Amino acid sequence: MNYRMICSILGHVVMLQSVLMLPPCLVGYLYGENKNAFIYLTVAAFCLLLGLAFRIIKPKSRTFYAREGFVCVSLSWIIMSLIGALPFYLSGEIPSYPDALFEIISGFTTTGSSILTDIEALSHCNLFWRSFSHWIGGMGVLVFILAILPMAGGSTMNLMKAESPGPSVGKLVPKTQQTAFLLYAIYFALTIVETILLLAGGMPLFDSICHAFGTAGTGGFGIKNSSIGGYSTYLQNVITIFMFLFGVNFTFYYYLLIRKVKNAFNLEEVRWYFYIYMVATLLITMNLSIDGAPFFHSMQQAAFQVASIMTTTGYATTDFNLWPQFSRTIMVILMFIGACAGSTGGGIKVSRITLYLKQVRKELKQQIHPRQICITKMDHKGVEHTTIRSCNVFLMAYVVVFVGSLLLLSLNGFDFTTNFTAIAATLNNIGPGLDMVGPAGNFSEFSVFSKFILMFDMLAGRLEIIPMLIIFHPATWRKQ
Amino acid sequence: MNYRMICSILGHVVMLQSVLMLPPCLVGYLYGENKNAFIYLTVAAFCLLLGLAFRIIKPKSRTFYAREGFVCVSLSWIIMSLIGALPFYLSGEIPSYPDALFEIISGFTTTGSSILTDIEALSHCNLFWRSFSHWIGGMGVLVFILAILPMAGGSTMNLMKAESPGPSVGKLVPKTQQTAFLLYAIYFALTIVETILLLAGGMPLFDSICHAFGTAGTGGFGIKNSSIGGYSTYLQNVITIFMFLFGVNFTFYYYLLIRKVKNAFNLEEVRWYFYIYMVATLLITMNLSIDGAPFFHSMQQAAFQVASIMTTTGYATTDFNLWPQFSRTIMVILMFIGACAGSTGGGIKVSRITLYLKQVRKELKQQIHPRQICITKMDHKGVEHTTIRSCNVFLMAYVVVFVGSLLLLSLNGFDFTTNFTAIAATLNNIGPGLDMVGPAGNFSEFSVFSKFILMFDMLAGRLEIIPMLIIFHPATWRKQ
Repeated sequence: MNYRMICSILGHVVMLQSVLMLPPCLVGYLYGENKNAFIYLTVAAFCLLLGLAFRIIKPKSRTFYAREGFVCVSLSWIIMSLIGALPFYLSGEIPSYPDALFEIISGFTTTGSSILTDIEALSHCNLFWRSFSHWIGGMGVLVFILAILPMAGGSTMNLMKAESPGPSVGKLVPKTQQTAFLLYAIYFALTIVETILLLAGGMPLFDSICHAFGTAGTGGFGIKNSSIGGYSTYLQNVITIFMFLFGVNFTFYYYLLIRKVKNAFNLEEVRWYFYIYMVATLLITMNLSIDGAPFFHSMQQAAFQVASIMTTTGYATTDFNLWPQFSRTIMVILMFIGACAGSTGGGIKVSRITLYLKQVRKELKQQIHPRQICITKMDHKGVEHTTIRSCNVFLMAYVVVFVGSLLLLSLNGFDFTTNFTAIAATLNNIGPGLDMVGPAGNFSEFSVFSKFILMFDMLAGRLEIIPMLIIFHPATWRKQ
Repeated sequence: MNYRMICSILGHVVMLQSVLMLPPCLVGYLYGENKNAFIYLTVAAFCLLLGLAFRIIKPKSRTFYAREGFVCVSLSWIIMSLIGALPFYLSGEIPSYPDALFEIISGFTTTGSSILTDIEALSHCNLFWRSFSHWIGGMGVLVFILAILPMAGGSTMNLMKAESPGPSVGKLVPKTQQTAFLLYAIYFALTIVETILLLAGGMPLFDSICHAFGTAGTGGFGIKNSSIGGYSTYLQNVITIFMFLFGVNFTFYYYLLIRKVKNAFNLEEVRWYFYIYMVATLLITMNLSIDGAPFFHSMQQAAFQVASIMTTTGYATTDFNLWPQFSRTIMVILMFIGACAGSTGGGIKVSRITLYLKQVRKELKQQIHPRQICITKMDHKGVEHTTIRSCNVFLMAYVVVFVGSLLLLSLNGFDFTTNFTAIAATLNNIGPGLDMVGPAGNFSEFSVFSKFILMFDMLAGRLEIIPMLIIFHPATWRKQ
């Protein structure tokens, strides 16, 4: 294990965080929250010193294998969260440090589950930091560092693979750095467009930026107790569209950028994502209409909530916990499906679900015609065995983490639906679940132990499980 | 597709069913239930005629591939159920035919979920038929036919593979017929021993036989409204032990029979089955004790209920729906794990769970040391790729069926826990779930549509999904 190299990268991460603390600091000064602004400044200074301390250790070699990539990503996210929770705690607005940690992990992992019972009581700089953390975590810090720092060694792809969601991370362009840069450019541009459209609808600047951050990272932290429910239909629709857009595989936008429109629309995952979205919205609209709600209102609500849950954002305009059971069940299923790989969304990912279904279909065919040679294809190309293997193992690891968490969470004594959907909401980085943790509820009632379980689930969900399991494997830390 | 051969085998099945109708008929006469006894006799005669009609079609060739095996097994189980429901319906004791069908499918698939609200109102012959159906379905009808009929063609293994549970069906002895015979011999012997032990504890003969049938098939239909709750502690303990024994891979008993004791105890699956059983019992005992129940009573109750759920039997001595949430969650997890492959129990099976965990561990190792060659081993032998593949696809197909059923069941409007555990209870062939379908509840409230979904799940669970999916695949019925 190349510890020196890992330290060096962690140094980068902490120094980057020092810079990331400045915008909320600025927001604090602008709103006259001087005490809190000073806290952000202090934490920024602390990060700078810590980062410099890390950077004193110079790497002897730049060899960097998959193992180092995983460890580096896991540790980066843990350190960032430990530091990121400080402003909430020091400002006294979240008096318990584990709660503050829960809130910031929920932010960075773009989950959006909250332990706060009154969001509007927070100061502006803390509200901003919550939403900003979504934006930072959405595309990933290491991807950002890769985008701006020229890293020698050539094995930087291992970092990107470990942090980016999806079964197979393809480079858009041959160089890792350029790929990372392109991803951030698309991300940045879409965020700005959304902010402008929200402003155009009469949303105040602060609200627009915060909500654009929350949408872009598919996070879901709002700044109002009613989430998006209090805003106009136009604003809700803008957010619906952008939630949907940020759940699309970014390769789609890249193809559009280089004018390969046909390639873009041929991406199988994106098509399936679209179909699932449409069918789910339609079914829920019908279910709500039959239940007596006006058709167009139902459709608008369904379109919003489906986009919110499927992209794992977690904004709410209505309490879907009160919907009929059929619609509630669709929502639970969507929680697991999640968004596209290569987007900022979480969940199992549409591409994996597609691969699972294709394998079942292939197996049936194979059983019917045992001598036929069947190949699982995706985007008209045969899928490599290693991709299928890691996809399948992901499902198993996912189930293991899910079941383990369910068991430990049940110690709280809450009902099955609450526990089940609390894990679904955190492991898939969504935010709200059903019953006690529904859109109108929150996670404050859980014990500290349970909160740590859920924090682990949020990180495991964001980093797609394997990196979080690897740091617990003894062989990782053993000398070769 | 060799339709003639399939018809010939279906003929065997229906004729066998004619014979199987005689014991309940006899029970009817003994208890003076002449009307019902006559119904059983009539159905038996009908089966005989139908079987002869099927047998008129003579197979031109005896070639018999995997495809034919699957179709044959699925159709056999469907036809057996359609006929087996007749006595319930004709006697007027279950006035709706779909309900009667639900009850007998629940019987044959050894599920034990019931739509009856008052079991004790049934006549003796119908009670006997319910329990007897567990015993028939436990080891499988086609395995029985293989055991008693000399089938030429040599491809009979395809039949046995399709009907026997588990990822890889090993022959105990080189010949399929002898293997089938041995399995039934062990099954028969264990059933008799249990009956004697129950009789020795003062249980009436009728009750002893019915409960032995229910235990042997890991079914769970009782003959009292309180299930096993009203019997003495001795009788409950005998049933606990036999439930556990019938959940063990029968290869274990075969090794014991041929005095390879070491081989028997080296079976990895059996060891894991034992560990899981012990840990679950212990955890629940502790949970109940802390909750205030006396220790030894808790342990006895936990030992019974864990054996009942893990082996997917479904007998109850207490309403575990009222247990604390931690114990309830353990029960739900056990529902999915299920018993050993090659036993009469259902669920995902301990061997598959072991293989899944081994794959996760292997993947972690592989990620840490990418160049190392890792092999998944079971019983000190490398597991074949096809076994792993079919195991993984099973998980996916399982999830697909589960999620689809969950969605369709939610149309009833019942709560999430009820729907979720109703499917868990039927797809894993257990019997009771939680909430509305808990040990003190039943399945009578569901709509006819929902009941058909659950019937499908029971059959899919018993036949391990693939055979039930294959009959819906168009390629199955297409000419090659």
